[in-house]
Amino acid sequence: MTRYQLFQKIKDKESFLCVGLDTDLQKIPKHLLKEEDPIFSFNKQIIDETHKYAVAYKPNTAFYESMGSKGWDALQKTLEYIPNDMFTIADAKRADIGNTSAMYARAFFEHMDFDSVTVAPYMGSDSIRPFLGFENKWVIILAATSNPGGLDFQHLSVNGEKLYEKVINTSKQWGSPDDTMYVVGATRPEALKEIRNIIPDHFLLIPGIGAQGGDLKTVCDNGLNSKCGLLVNSSRGIIYSDSTTDFAKEAGTAAKKIQLEMADILNTR
Amino acid sequence: MTRYQLFQKIKDKESFLCVGLDTDLQKIPKHLLKEEDPIFSFNKQIIDETHKYAVAYKPNTAFYESMGSKGWDALQKTLEYIPNDMFTIADAKRADIGNTSAMYARAFFEHMDFDSVTVAPYMGSDSIRPFLGFENKWVIILAATSNPGGLDFQHLSVNGEKLYEKVINTSKQWGSPDDTMYVVGATRPEALKEIRNIIPDHFLLIPGIGAQGGDLKTVCDNGLNSKCGLLVNSSRGIIYSDSTTDFAKEAGTAAKKIQLEMADILNTR
Repeated sequence: MTRYQLFQKIKDKESFLCVGLDTDLQKIPKHLLKEEDPIFSFNKQIIDETHKYAVAYKPNTAFYESMGSKGWDALQKTLEYIPNDMFTIADAKRADIGNTSAMYARAFFEHMDFDSVTVAPYMGSDSIRPFLGFENKWVIILAATSNPGGLDFQHLSVNGEKLYEKVINTSKQWGSPDDTMYVVGATRPEALKEIRNIIPDHFLLIPGIGAQGGDLKTVCDNGLNSKCGLLVNSSRGIIYSDSTTDFAKEAGTAAKKIQLEMADILNTR
Repeated sequence: MTRYQLFQKIKDKESFLCVGLDTDLQKIPKHLLKEEDPIFSFNKQIIDETHKYAVAYKPNTAFYESMGSKGWDALQKTLEYIPNDMFTIADAKRADIGNTSAMYARAFFEHMDFDSVTVAPYMGSDSIRPFLGFENKWVIILAATSNPGGLDFQHLSVNGEKLYEKVINTSKQWGSPDDTMYVVGATRPEALKEIRNIIPDHFLLIPGIGAQGGDLKTVCDNGLNSKCGLLVNSSRGIIYSDSTTDFAKEAGTAAKKIQLEMADILNTR
């Protein structure tokens, strides 16, 4: 999906919501456990009820890997089930030496057909460049993450700038706003503001609203640009809204609530 | 495996060699491609011929993931085939927010039974701590990696120390030399020397000899401690020694050559 297509989709749906498919056997409604593939069954119903209100889905690979090859199959089936007009994110946080990162890029862009994959920047240029150069595919680089440990290294000062600023200033030269996004936690509004100044045009993937405590309005005040420029993710706050047979309907209601807030924000700017 | 058991194994075998199972369908001998599971078939023969000369095996997950659930099955079968007395490393370079890292730990320590997993430090404490606390399991944290991009961020100065030093000084407090190792590239001898001063007791996993150009003697001069303290990895230099039906025998010869150098080094100290 191109940046233009993504922005059109956001305008059409009045939404920049990404639904995180962090699907955990221990958290899904109990009645699903008797199905042949409970994970896929859960995801299918969540997608059915939420896709009208969202523009993106983000399965986190950890939840699928924890079930081995069965989980990997469920991930593949989920990806195939997601409607074609949605932006898909493999939240994998990969990166390795050049020839190995190229294998990861093949895993997520060729063997599977994700639009994008999240990557960790610690290993530098040759660990990230192999994800670039796939037509209409995106790399999403961790910058200032939402978790408490995000403060351990990312906010340290390196030669007068914070490490996450250095990561952005260096890595923005490897790609462009047409193939690179950055992860900035909703729990880091001050970082978001600084990052928007450094990269006015790039899309930012914002986890951390809902369960992690970030606030949508604050995120938008600091991060929106003229082409929206934000994908705001909610995982647990949507998919685990309810644990009865109504779980998917309730997830739809939770997604709609956020979409309506987003429509309001987009229409009043 | 405990630190004591690993050191005993090193003394018994006069080897601190780790064989990297970076098994790539495009690089394995062509005659294997007609087998039902060429990846497992390749690994099985490599293990048969190299295990006498090594103490550890390190499959890099990227190569298996690039083939989807089939690759994941081949990885599982490979792990089960590796003799029980070998130290096993899932070279996965994972890490995510706390609850998600816990899923990765389950994937590699419970669903599969690896002794250790490599992790990236960018996301800080709560992304790494979930890998600690499993009995006789290890976390191996990226410090100064062997690839060219390793210089982009890891060697930057943060408050008077290099980022990789800061990573080590901070993270060594989360675990101990009994459950934590660090990755230091053989191509970074000066970093290895500094790191050995910071953490005299920890085991270090050293990739980068062979194809990447690092030198075993230099690594040992800078990194050995009284309990060896090194696992030196070779992947391509061993497993792709030959592309005929003799590939495994030749891999054994290449592994033996390194083991003899290691024996010599261990016996002359």
